[in-house]
Amino acid sequence: MSESEWFIGIDLGGTKIGTGLVDRQGRVHARDYRPTEAARGRDAVIVRMLDSARQVMTEAGLGLGQVAAIAIGAPGPLDIPRGILTAPPNLPGWHNVPLRQIVEDALHVPTYLENDANAAGIGEYLYGAGRGTHHMVYVTASTGIGGGLILNGKIYQGATGGAGEIGHMTVLPYGPHCGCGNRGCLEAMASGTAIAREGQDLVRRGVPTLIAELAGGKPDAVTAKTVVDAMQQGDRYATDIVTEAMRYLGIGMANLVNLFNPEMIVIGGGLTHLGEQLLDPVRRAIALRAFPMAAQRVQVALARLGDDVGIIGAAGAAMMAHT
Amino acid sequence: MSESEWFIGIDLGGTKIGTGLVDRQGRVHARDYRPTEAARGRDAVIVRMLDSARQVMTEAGLGLGQVAAIAIGAPGPLDIPRGILTAPPNLPGWHNVPLRQIVEDALHVPTYLENDANAAGIGEYLYGAGRGTHHMVYVTASTGIGGGLILNGKIYQGATGGAGEIGHMTVLPYGPHCGCGNRGCLEAMASGTAIAREGQDLVRRGVPTLIAELAGGKPDAVTAKTVVDAMQQGDRYATDIVTEAMRYLGIGMANLVNLFNPEMIVIGGGLTHLGEQLLDPVRRAIALRAFPMAAQRVQVALARLGDDVGIIGAAGAAMMAHT
Repeated sequence: MSESEWFIGIDLGGTKIGTGLVDRQGRVHARDYRPTEAARGRDAVIVRMLDSARQVMTEAGLGLGQVAAIAIGAPGPLDIPRGILTAPPNLPGWHNVPLRQIVEDALHVPTYLENDANAAGIGEYLYGAGRGTHHMVYVTASTGIGGGLILNGKIYQGATGGAGEIGHMTVLPYGPHCGCGNRGCLEAMASGTAIAREGQDLVRRGVPTLIAELAGGKPDAVTAKTVVDAMQQGDRYATDIVTEAMRYLGIGMANLVNLFNPEMIVIGGGLTHLGEQLLDPVRRAIALRAFPMAAQRVQVALARLGDDVGIIGAAGAAMMAHT
Repeated sequence: MSESEWFIGIDLGGTKIGTGLVDRQGRVHARDYRPTEAARGRDAVIVRMLDSARQVMTEAGLGLGQVAAIAIGAPGPLDIPRGILTAPPNLPGWHNVPLRQIVEDALHVPTYLENDANAAGIGEYLYGAGRGTHHMVYVTASTGIGGGLILNGKIYQGATGGAGEIGHMTVLPYGPHCGCGNRGCLEAMASGTAIAREGQDLVRRGVPTLIAELAGGKPDAVTAKTVVDAMQQGDRYATDIVTEAMRYLGIGMANLVNLFNPEMIVIGGGLTHLGEQLLDPVRRAIALRAFPMAAQRVQVALARLGDDVGIIGAAGAAMMAHT
């Protein structure tokens, strides 16, 4: 175990880079958020990321020599054992980038790479809703659906770091096409993208729904938020879309209960703004579909770390990998 | 680590009890198989089980004092941490039986309880098709569909020993009812029971299929074997039933690849007699539906331990639990 109490967590996203200097209690002592500017290309993004790391150190009045480890939470697919971003869809032009090594060479601090959903899961496990559990599944329900598996108190990565692709369980065998190439994935049924797609479809077909009004009649202007707004104003079509999406989310979560028998499922991501409209169908699906012993054991909770989850989680991943 | 090289594996099934004296290399030095006679009740079954264990010791010319540990592979649902059979459907009259303690008290050997599918998975991992892997999913495809998860070289049991219920992933949300209470489970779509149900349905509806002929026109006489026999004699209806079942098995296996990113999926159980007619659709579903990196990494293999898998697996579970 390193003597240093300091870890840097970097959350590398397609739109923003977040960096935090975090202690072993998960407290963020300095943070930096800046746009990724992915379009300027891979080398420019890496420079921005390194600048961001240096910035938090300056802000905290510390030197990089005082940092025990860095972890970068990055979008998949990754080759975690080798520290490589293989082909992240939201970082155009990145192919087989050995990011772990690049950062370690530049900053001279032991560096680790972790899937962004895994990192968020580690954050919630160590410092958020999942504290005190040993078996926890983290699910991010947002534009996409991702996951992180904490099994026996450790992140489970599988043979090549690709485990936990919860969003790509098939839940409707010949359902809608998914961005991953498969059909009927949980992500294709229950994500923000799926909700938006169903709303767009109604507008395109001229269905008299408030969704059309809110989107100015333009199908492509419909987002998940448009549909949720319409639902909250009482639109029945919008309600049906969200209800159906949450029904599938519940089916996916019940599958996880039967497979992992976890103590807790922690759900984060933008769709958690639905609150009970998300939690209630998930809990009911688990009660209806999972084995009673496992269903009774599991708690379903919303994530607690908020906007800093990415940087806290990445720092947590550094701690777990480094000890 | 115990100095003794001897372990007893007991496979407690609804129709037969198997017991083996097994060494650390997985070799069976003595074995005993006898009918469970479950109808005679719980106490009589326990006596038969204890007699069976003593029998293998006598046969080997060894005393129980030379045995390091015993494990019992038993049908779920179990409370593994507490060593209790809660309510096994094929052992009528058993409710919350503390079997682990009963056996330990009777034989004075450290005793463990394990789910039967987990035990079979441990057997294949230590001594069968999965040797040398670290992340392996064992699937038994038979009357039911069960599973055992070897993750990071250990059996993964979850919070209450209920993990790995692979057969009860929902793969068709409003599909046929399953024995577990849910609908559209993998077991309800792809097990021997599902194949038999579809065959029975055809006979009941008077469809001109060889299945009806082989079953003497009696729907209830149709088993999975009847359907497979009809298929092998060229019956198109039977072929469709098996094809559809294997398509769902493939969907389930692709889900496991996306969730666990395993090095290997080992498939055992009666349906493996289908050989390539099982393996080919499973491999194609994984290639079509799972993420390329995980799909390319995983091997799909048939189980290798044959009829002794239950006793070898239980002995392996004793070894793993006892070290």
